[in-house]
Amino acid sequence: MTLGSPLVSSTLTPSPADKFTFGLWTVGWQGRDPFGDATRQALDPVETVHKLAELGAYGVTFHDDDLIPFGSNDADRTATIERFKAALAETGLVVPMATTNLFTHPVFKDGGFTSNDRDVRRYALRKTMRNIDLAAELGAETYVAWGGREGAESGGAKDVRIALDRFKEAFDVLGEYVVEKGYNLRFAIEPKPNEPRGDILLPTVGHALAFINSLERPDMVGLNPEVGHEQMAGLNFPHGIAQALWHGKLFHIDLNGQTGIKYDQDLRFGAGDLRSAFWLVDLLENSDYQGPRHFDFKPPRTEDYSGVWASAAGCMRNYLALKEKAKAFREDPAVQEALRASRLHELAQSTLGEGEKLADLLADRSAFEDFDVEAAAQRGMAFEQLDQLAMDHLLGI
Amino acid sequence: MTLGSPLVSSTLTPSPADKFTFGLWTVGWQGRDPFGDATRQALDPVETVHKLAELGAYGVTFHDDDLIPFGSNDADRTATIERFKAALAETGLVVPMATTNLFTHPVFKDGGFTSNDRDVRRYALRKTMRNIDLAAELGAETYVAWGGREGAESGGAKDVRIALDRFKEAFDVLGEYVVEKGYNLRFAIEPKPNEPRGDILLPTVGHALAFINSLERPDMVGLNPEVGHEQMAGLNFPHGIAQALWHGKLFHIDLNGQTGIKYDQDLRFGAGDLRSAFWLVDLLENSDYQGPRHFDFKPPRTEDYSGVWASAAGCMRNYLALKEKAKAFREDPAVQEALRASRLHELAQSTLGEGEKLADLLADRSAFEDFDVEAAAQRGMAFEQLDQLAMDHLLGI
Amino acid sequence: MTLGSPLVSSTLTPSPADKFTFGLWTVGWQGRDPFGDATRQALDPVETVHKLAELGAYGVTFHDDDLIPFGSNDADRTATIERFKAALAETGLVVPMATTNLFTHPVFKDGGFTSNDRDVRRYALRKTMRNIDLAAELGAETYVAWGGREGAESGGAKDVRIALDRFKEAFDVLGEYVVEKGYNLRFAIEPKPNEPRGDILLPTVGHALAFINSLERPDMVGLNPEVGHEQMAGLNFPHGIAQALWHGKLFHIDLNGQTGIKYDQDLRFGAGDLRSAFWLVDLLENSDYQGPRHFDFKPPRTEDYSGVWASAAGCMRNYLALKEKAKAFREDPAVQEALRASRLHELAQSTLGEGEKLADLLADRSAFEDFDVEAAAQRGMAFEQLDQLAMDHLLGI
Amino acid sequence: MTLGSPLVSSTLTPSPADKFTFGLWTVGWQGRDPFGDATRQALDPVETVHKLAELGAYGVTFHDDDLIPFGSNDADRTATIERFKAALAETGLVVPMATTNLFTHPVFKDGGFTSNDRDVRRYALRKTMRNIDLAAELGAETYVAWGGREGAESGGAKDVRIALDRFKEAFDVLGEYVVEKGYNLRFAIEPKPNEPRGDILLPTVGHALAFINSLERPDMVGLNPEVGHEQMAGLNFPHGIAQALWHGKLFHIDLNGQTGIKYDQDLRFGAGDLRSAFWLVDLLENSDYQGPRHFDFKPPRTEDYSGVWASAAGCMRNYLALKEKAKAFREDPAVQEALRASRLHELAQSTLGEGEKLADLLADRSAFEDFDVEAAAQRGMAFEQLDQLAMDHLLGI
Repeated sequence: MTLGSPLVSSTLTPSPADKFTFGLWTVGWQGRDPFGDATRQALDPVETVHKLAELGAYGVTFHDDDLIPFGSNDADRTATIERFKAALAETGLVVPMATTNLFTHPVFKDGGFTSNDRDVRRYALRKTMRNIDLAAELGAETYVAWGGREGAESGGAKDVRIALDRFKEAFDVLGEYVVEKGYNLRFAIEPKPNEPRGDILLPTVGHALAFINSLERPDMVGLNPEVGHEQMAGLNFPHGIAQALWHGKLFHIDLNGQTGIKYDQDLRFGAGDLRSAFWLVDLLENSDYQGPRHFDFKPPRTEDYSGVWASAAGCMRNYLALKEKAKAFREDPAVQEALRASRLHELAQSTLGEGEKLADLLADRSAFEDFDVEAAAQRGMAFEQLDQLAMDHLLGI
Repeated sequence: MTLGSPLVSSTLTPSPADKFTFGLWTVGWQGRDPFGDATRQALDPVETVHKLAELGAYGVTFHDDDLIPFGSNDADRTATIERFKAALAETGLVVPMATTNLFTHPVFKDGGFTSNDRDVRRYALRKTMRNIDLAAELGAETYVAWGGREGAESGGAKDVRIALDRFKEAFDVLGEYVVEKGYNLRFAIEPKPNEPRGDILLPTVGHALAFINSLERPDMVGLNPEVGHEQMAGLNFPHGIAQALWHGKLFHIDLNGQTGIKYDQDLRFGAGDLRSAFWLVDLLENSDYQGPRHFDFKPPRTEDYSGVWASAAGCMRNYLALKEKAKAFREDPAVQEALRASRLHELAQSTLGEGEKLADLLADRSAFEDFDVEAAAQRGMAFEQLDQLAMDHLLGI
Repeated sequence: MTLGSPLVSSTLTPSPADKFTFGLWTVGWQGRDPFGDATRQALDPVETVHKLAELGAYGVTFHDDDLIPFGSNDADRTATIERFKAALAETGLVVPMATTNLFTHPVFKDGGFTSNDRDVRRYALRKTMRNIDLAAELGAETYVAWGGREGAESGGAKDVRIALDRFKEAFDVLGEYVVEKGYNLRFAIEPKPNEPRGDILLPTVGHALAFINSLERPDMVGLNPEVGHEQMAGLNFPHGIAQALWHGKLFHIDLNGQTGIKYDQDLRFGAGDLRSAFWLVDLLENSDYQGPRHFDFKPPRTEDYSGVWASAAGCMRNYLALKEKAKAFREDPAVQEALRASRLHELAQSTLGEGEKLADLLADRSAFEDFDVEAAAQRGMAFEQLDQLAMDHLLGI
Repeated sequence: MTLGSPLVSSTLTPSPADKFTFGLWTVGWQGRDPFGDATRQALDPVETVHKLAELGAYGVTFHDDDLIPFGSNDADRTATIERFKAALAETGLVVPMATTNLFTHPVFKDGGFTSNDRDVRRYALRKTMRNIDLAAELGAETYVAWGGREGAESGGAKDVRIALDRFKEAFDVLGEYVVEKGYNLRFAIEPKPNEPRGDILLPTVGHALAFINSLERPDMVGLNPEVGHEQMAGLNFPHGIAQALWHGKLFHIDLNGQTGIKYDQDLRFGAGDLRSAFWLVDLLENSDYQGPRHFDFKPPRTEDYSGVWASAAGCMRNYLALKEKAKAFREDPAVQEALRASRLHELAQSTLGEGEKLADLLADRSAFEDFDVEAAAQRGMAFEQLDQLAMDHLLGI
């Protein structure tokens, strides 16, 4: 039985090489919720940049309105951007991703790209393009699209087939814009099943993956899945990420925590379903995903800023701890033996042999006519032994 | 305000033109559940065929093992099939769909097409092909694949990316088989999020739609979504069906009832979320879906066979009632006015005008610079009035 | 088979005799949600009173801060109250219930009665007593306590056993206050499982019922269950209400709609799970509950005030329609026969016969030794026939 | 920052002093599920007793039909019991709890104590009393009642108020029986929200606690809460246990794992929500609960008996590991400081001061009139720091 050794502090200290990024709106969340007013003062984005750098982050991300208050005039906008760029330069923080706020202002109450109101759709496209310019200027390579208001509360309010036409139109137009401008930018759709709408279009990783295939430029569009969003539908997040990777569509990822099917909690990474977080890190670290580890969380509104920064630090600490544990798990000879007992290597073999044709399979009596199905049914899969080894590594025992 | 008129009985009497079909395993479910033994005697499939015909059904469907007990010898198999065909001929019932049981026998405890055990995968392919032959012989045009055991309870037990390779391999091989045999048969994948596995691969309509795009013969593969399965993930079923239709992938449908996120209930159609059922029928009847209305339900194990047939009749009665109501809803001038007030006609307009180019949109100051966003935000969507009209039609008031 | 007749409009027109009441915060909700700003202007409570009266409501309810903005000085407070009383007098609307806002202000971020911060707990008690005075002055007989912030997001943050001590202390003190003042007022606890806290204390009807038994004055405290709150835990609302009635603890009720386990939707009554709403109305109308039918809903933020009032009217219309249908259901001879077939009359018989002693039961060989368990197992319960009759009545067919 | 030290093996080796118990039906589950046949041969209860003793368990529990097949004649019954007793004597295993199977046989399809069929209710009482005799004979002090079939799938099928009368009658009669017989036995009700019924009566810890207060002998009846059952309703299990402890009603406990709101999974303890398991063990070990730590789990049907015993061993190993971690957490000075920063000590103070009267509170201007609510609102709760310390202890970092 493997006995863990305690992780040394240095392993758990984040550095830019870990590619941890945070949204301005995360540590900057003031704590307004459906039943309560803000509990924290607004954070200056420049302060956020400095603080994140200090904590060991790699980058920062934003919605247009996080950085530049909605309705700012051009002069203020420019000044704000310049201050922000100076802070980036000073700290070395990068902006790998940006996105558009198409949900806070009441004009978006029925959505942005799929609002029944055509004027709103046109406005949403223009608002997005404007921020794409800024994203490109700041060097972002991923542009996230969370369609949180694209949905409905009642059955007659939205013709979903037609709404999907409009959704496609939006991505086709935006793709054309990016191509025309020559930006090095790809889109990442962020699915969510519900909240703030009763039901949101493209509710899961799967629905968004399917949608992308119908776009004019499917190669330019991938996913930005969020832990809690899939878990709000009771789905296994690592399974969803695995499918996204399988399709080559994991362009970005939002890490946080959620305790099951309920309102969107945005807990710090590691909180909520810890075992799922372990398998997620194990998957990411053993994949070709090279992008940021982006935390999209909300420090609980019980916290003052000391708690906010502790929460942000906890996100990174938990990721690093899980990364070390996943590595140790995969390297453990007992685990390798258990994986073999569970026949993972057999899953990796193709079902038809090399060069085997359909006709060969049909002619193989050992595959069907002479197959001893009762004997085969007796073979145990040894999954519990394997899973307990994973638990031992996770608990450090 | 519209006042309904009671539906006359004749409208609610099913006939084969309504294309209602039932699985042998539905009315034939004996009531074994995780905590209880069978409460009903086995039904002879021939009796089922006669009874369904009597009730006004159009067709019957089956898993191989529903019709031919697992492990039957060839002579018994042939005799069983002949008796079944005779019953079909006698009643006029058709077999529009068939499927394989890759879940009951313990050999499938880790799945069929994605079992870690390669022998099991080969056996599953052969078992499927054998029943495809029968399906084709009986005139089925749809072959359903519910991968209920393709999944896992623990994180290390399945490498999902590799399992998807195996899943794809299975559909590619089966597609080749159908093409080679020249059968007029398409596959329909039936997603489900969990139960009997902790997490099932291709858990929702979306995940399955995405997967299909990666197959060798995507045109041959579509979906068989089931009401309760999507609702087990808290998803809006009509929304999922709308997206499946949008992708041209609604090949078949499983109608039943479910009361929210819990174990798979398979209630009769109409039970569970009735308002969702209304919008589903409204959608199906206003779509190009021409296939069967297939009931995949389980009459509660509290019932004797009198209750079983009442439950089956209720499925059809409820569908027909909702169909009439949906028709009246769409034809009601007050509804048409309410749809207009909710600007559904604007959703139907493309966001860019006819012939409008990206450059035109960018140059249109009314779309952004001069857009009065505060004024636009004041426009109400009038969804509640519309939804109450739908309620009035549903309640017949 | 019963064929319905359409309900006439007059039956569906609410009047004060129907005892429909609305919170100021319901129609007055401005549409702020976790991702969006207000979409509607504030409503003057006086306007609300007039509008509700016009729609046929019986009464209006409020949180202290709904009526009197938080932090108002005494003069403003008095003036506001006088204007409100004048509106009540003018319209005849009554105030059967009031409640305290212990959740919006950031000071309540860790709760009111169970905040870890003792100062906050003392303030919460005083704030509540102050509004109890107003409630009593306005004639309210029920004082609702929704402990929406009494809870936690993390395991160490709250010692639940000690928090329940504090919760009990609060109700004991408030009970003493009411007794001492001689008010004719009873408390009604409103349970909710989560949101805005990760987990809320007294999460369901059951937990609150149990808690009440531990109070100093259990007779003064009952429940105010809300449809959506129990449904957020996947619980059957009519079942919960039935248990509350069984304990004599249904003091008030919050009617609204919810589409399953997700964030708190507060849809209009009838929206969401319509079949459950039917059984709820059937239960209420066949119980000794004489209190208000209180709507605690939020007109979707897509709506302008025309939609708000349509939504409010819809709540009442749907209740009245369901009431008529429930009445017709119970009076239908076919239903009465079906209830008998389902042996509801046998459930109403005590299990031991009149005068039967334990010894008699033990001596009755027909109850065990000679009981033909296999024969008894064959008896069908006929629930599907009964449930389809209910569906027919609901659909008006 | 605390750095963990690895737990030594000896701490993780179970012994009878740990009071770990298992149901015969747990390790003996053959793997029949709603979609699949048994994957494992039946286990001889005598073999189970020996194997559990070998693994370090303290005791074994059973449903009547687990030990003595349903329908056994008296001679076989006696012989079976004698063999079982011999195994207990040989191994030193005890039987602290027993229960009745009122769900597997089809006669119980509408319940046992609340079946609409009065004959079934009488039979259920007698079946229960018979097994109570055996339980008492074997020295059990707790008799569990899981009313898994007491419920309904449709609204008309059960009058819940009347069903609760019958439920109460059953416990009153059984209580009388135990008293009359002079057994040292208490009842423990096991709540569950649904499955195998659509909705089960007494769905949560709270509902059962409330119900007990209405019984003739409330002192004789407490709870047997199960981890997964509460989590199937999305409820926080440690919170529910804390409330049960607060009411003095935690008579027994069923430990297992569940991954959120879905079908009843019965995973081994520790699997599923690991963080919740940590807080549960922390709570139990810091409470006056002295009863068995009873595992009610089902080793996945993928496993052969080697996996079954690994799974059983894992339950105990995980409990012991969490117990050590909880102890270290509470003893850590950094944690104690963090608890103080989170003001848990203030929660432990009564809200009114010692000797403070209501009049004093009302007269205390510092509590309301002069309370600086804005300043108080600025105080952070420091919960994130505390929760991260708990995470560090859990992960052993």
